[in-house]
Amino acid sequence: MLKIYSSSELTPQLRARLLQRSSSEDREALAIVQAILDEIAAEGLVALKRISERLDGVAPDPFLVTPEEFEEAELALSSEIKQAFQTAYQNIKSFHAFQRKMLEDQKTTVCTSTLGYMYRPVERVAVYVPGGKAFYPSSVLMGVVPARIAGVSHITLLTPPGRDGKIHPAVLYCARLAGANAVLKAGGAHGVAAAYHGLLTPPAELIIGPGNRYVTAAKNLLASTGRVRIDQPAGPSEVIVIADNTARPAFVAADLLSQAEHGEDSPCILLTDSLVLAERVSEEIAKGLDERPERRSMKETSIREHSYAVVFETLDEAIAFSNDYGPEHLEIATEKPERDLEKITAAGSVFLGHYAPVALGDYFSGTNHILPTGGAARMFSGVGVDTFMKRITYQYPTRESLRKALEPIRIMSKVEGLDQEHGHSVEVRFEGEKDRSPSQG
Amino acid sequence: MLKIYSSSELTPQLRARLLQRSSSEDREALAIVQAILDEIAAEGLVALKRISERLDGVAPDPFLVTPEEFEEAELALSSEIKQAFQTAYQNIKSFHAFQRKMLEDQKTTVCTSTLGYMYRPVERVAVYVPGGKAFYPSSVLMGVVPARIAGVSHITLLTPPGRDGKIHPAVLYCARLAGANAVLKAGGAHGVAAAYHGLLTPPAELIIGPGNRYVTAAKNLLASTGRVRIDQPAGPSEVIVIADNTARPAFVAADLLSQAEHGEDSPCILLTDSLVLAERVSEEIAKGLDERPERRSMKETSIREHSYAVVFETLDEAIAFSNDYGPEHLEIATEKPERDLEKITAAGSVFLGHYAPVALGDYFSGTNHILPTGGAARMFSGVGVDTFMKRITYQYPTRESLRKALEPIRIMSKVEGLDQEHGHSVEVRFEGEKDRSPSQG
Repeated sequence: MLKIYSSSELTPQLRARLLQRSSSEDREALAIVQAILDEIAAEGLVALKRISERLDGVAPDPFLVTPEEFEEAELALSSEIKQAFQTAYQNIKSFHAFQRKMLEDQKTTVCTSTLGYMYRPVERVAVYVPGGKAFYPSSVLMGVVPARIAGVSHITLLTPPGRDGKIHPAVLYCARLAGANAVLKAGGAHGVAAAYHGLLTPPAELIIGPGNRYVTAAKNLLASTGRVRIDQPAGPSEVIVIADNTARPAFVAADLLSQAEHGEDSPCILLTDSLVLAERVSEEIAKGLDERPERRSMKETSIREHSYAVVFETLDEAIAFSNDYGPEHLEIATEKPERDLEKITAAGSVFLGHYAPVALGDYFSGTNHILPTGGAARMFSGVGVDTFMKRITYQYPTRESLRKALEPIRIMSKVEGLDQEHGHSVEVRFEGEKDRSPSQG
Repeated sequence: MLKIYSSSELTPQLRARLLQRSSSEDREALAIVQAILDEIAAEGLVALKRISERLDGVAPDPFLVTPEEFEEAELALSSEIKQAFQTAYQNIKSFHAFQRKMLEDQKTTVCTSTLGYMYRPVERVAVYVPGGKAFYPSSVLMGVVPARIAGVSHITLLTPPGRDGKIHPAVLYCARLAGANAVLKAGGAHGVAAAYHGLLTPPAELIIGPGNRYVTAAKNLLASTGRVRIDQPAGPSEVIVIADNTARPAFVAADLLSQAEHGEDSPCILLTDSLVLAERVSEEIAKGLDERPERRSMKETSIREHSYAVVFETLDEAIAFSNDYGPEHLEIATEKPERDLEKITAAGSVFLGHYAPVALGDYFSGTNHILPTGGAARMFSGVGVDTFMKRITYQYPTRESLRKALEPIRIMSKVEGLDQEHGHSVEVRFEGEKDRSPSQG
């Protein structure tokens, strides 16, 4: 069922192919989206209505979710569903509050001057959550909770409505629970543009959250102006499981199929030092597809076209492969997972041990599930409290430390051709200093 | 000399105009650069040579700086110049090493599971430093030092050569001092593309540093693929000085003119609660332009077209204006600068007190000078050690904590239509558990 490679077969070419994911500039989407952005920039709300009707089949009136709709959503949900999301919310809040506490303002002394930095929240944020056909209330929590903990002043949740102009009650429930300030019923490029221009909410300075190719293109085009920050582009969800012979084939197979449930282009990869395990996982996948037939063709395509196992001589080789891959999700189902974790240099979120299915982090444990995909984990972090903050550096030099800097600054600024004013701005502070020194020294 | 507004004149429209900076999508540059990127992608080194000849007037052979060139550079510089950059290097290293120490790996317990995160360096980085006509060895230190301290494996310095195919000796000296692994003599969009595709150095996963509009366009286009991370677009350098009547007009004027020395589009802004100060600063600027005539027309244009003072009733109003502006550089030349700092919510780098000219941070104090411009400080941090790292999250759940998650995950994944496999991946771990439990529990 699962294609199994031996590490001895891995030529550099094959290795490169296995590491590669499909992703490229989407020029078609960029062109389509540019036109939408231009319409919204020129005509504002009028264009938003027109484009919503054209693309979503509805222009909600009003676009912003009303207090009554929030009430209705709460009534529409069973207490069991509400309880489940509440518990998840508490865990997500706990972990992100811990992250916030660790982002402390700091200062030190360099060359007798005080140098420091402080973290401050971004003020106006939009969190994009896909919608329309499927609903992701868990993603609402993952985007809004850390923003709220960071201290963001205004959080707009951006999500496309159904054809009836409504948003799924669990999405609204989670939006209120997590503390979104507004829910804007608009998705796609037009929704992103509406948030950016502040048509109905304060203009967003940071737009995060995965969306389709048009959402991605809109974020990229707006980011290129330097007036808004975005997170990294989102691609198909993916998992690597690094497992040794202490792993249970049925567990590993379940976790791979769980990833395949996300879409037919999801890579589900097993890296192991045990051929027996790889073979048994493959059997369990076949069994699982028979026993749990929902979305079967999607799961089969994902396993057949995008997934594989590699059997290495050692676990360290498996880890090295995984680091080159930079998986969004990484399970380490080995005898000593904490030891192996130390060797990980790139991954979005890591799941340690035999009781750590990715589903736990998708929904419940408290870690974030908005993560870099397609190898972006090699250079990007997943969403966290720091996503919603910036670091402001400062310095409080003493007079003496500035005096020591005088000569070096004169020399260095001269090399750069900036000596006249840069040099002078230091010198002027030591001219005729005795009779006119300000109080601070 | 300096246009002085009273806060009572500030209509919302005028306020908005004063806060605004010129920046927009540069579609013309994007189109030109797309063609260059396509050429490099298709033809590699051949295209790099051709485009270098066309745009830089030279195709250096070799493109990578040789050990001999580094030696020559060292010999070409006076010991005084080398000493100045070395001292600056030590300060920059001290402050960034302090930053690194504060980015500690952390873990906590949520719902009986261990949840944590760890910081790991990006492996392959390119640092862009503008060149050709002017030289910025200080920017080499600012880009390379934090990357080295973060633990980046390979740092390529990317800078355009002069028409003679050479790089300024101070740039090469600083590159070696800071620990760049390679210096690639290519700038512009073609240089960025060469670093991205790894034509002569390991392919860059992160490209930082300011450049002209073509560099910015190249970074934006490549970033949109999700395969490389970039920093924010760079615009004209800018300063706000918040000053009260304890400030010396001559110091403030010198600092404003020092900013104007960067370019004729640099905003130099004074915010104060003292009309007397504003008037005297204006006089000192006029005096300074007479006394220090180099680059006079550039400085005058910057002061006349892009600069102003606003006199507010209170310092708090001045601070609020500055926070809305989000200045790249912010000087707080007031009686109690540390108290005022607490109210700052957006700025790249802050300079406190009467002995804190921006030039100190440009060159010497140890803080970074690669900073967000054009209002981007409202959502971006300047370059720091964290720029070159990513945060990897992990979790090590106990069996018991997974059991508690079983029912909520079943419920939540059902709402999202992902219950079959996501639910099963948890359930399978509790099937027939007595006779086949793995060792880890």
